[in-house]
Amino acid sequence: MRSLGRHILVEFYDCDPLALDDLDLVEHSMKEAAIVAGSTIVDSVFRRFAPHGISGVVVIAESHLAIHTWPEYGYAAVDLFTCGEKVDPWAVHDHLQDAFRAGDSECKELPRGELRVLGEDACHKPAGSSGPLSHQVG
Amino acid sequence: MRSLGRHILVEFYDCDPLALDDLDLVEHSMKEAAIVAGSTIVDSVFRRFAPHGISGVVVIAESHLAIHTWPEYGYAAVDLFTCGEKVDPWAVHDHLQDAFRAGDSECKELPRGELRVLGEDACHKPAGSSGPLSHQVG
Repeated sequence: MRSLGRHILVEFYDCDPLALDDLDLVEHSMKEAAIVAGSTIVDSVFRRFAPHGISGVVVIAESHLAIHTWPEYGYAAVDLFTCGEKVDPWAVHDHLQDAFRAGDSECKELPRGELRVLGEDACHKPAGSSGPLSHQVG
Repeated sequence: MRSLGRHILVEFYDCDPLALDDLDLVEHSMKEAAIVAGSTIVDSVFRRFAPHGISGVVVIAESHLAIHTWPEYGYAAVDLFTCGEKVDPWAVHDHLQDAFRAGDSECKELPRGELRVLGEDACHKPAGSSGPLSHQVG
């Protein structure tokens, strides 16, 4: 482990515009994606905006999964922040690509909280820390 | 405008560990930061985890503001997704740096939904789109 978290940013292009503007479909797909990927859902917020577009976030025990859609462009911006090794980000990608019928996608992965910057050896826990690096619901 | 959104990822280092583990302080600071930056809060979710650490998201009309804290490392990962020109991401940064007494920070800004990739001229709205590029609460 070299960082506390991984942040995966996904651009979905050429999606079905009706899917991207359907609040129930987007919310259901995002929650399903979180479960399929092996994460534990803590809470969620989804809203539809006028004249079109949806924003939503699923807070998971392993961090978060967020989406913003622009149906008029057939475009959705998704980001998945995970900590620990439990969650499979590519399962999220594949599930949402199917749900939105995306013709194309692009992904970036960024380490968050790099241990070399935090002054920690990747093989050791910090002194005084007894906690796991993935959060548990309190 | 060259992209539909801007995604700003901020690493806060050498923070006050007690601040990063205080649910009320983190939630209050994040909401204040959203307001100071000129955004409109739509909804929010904040949770404290065992043995320590907080995750939270403020959904704003202009997208979202999320945080995950690791008090044991004095570290917080913040990300701000904005669309439109209204929100000042650096006001968010400065407000949270003060709130968490961060000794250091690092920022990355990534364009989301680049218009050249979406096949749109940056100076023109897409045909058939009458809507603003920043969302309005529906």
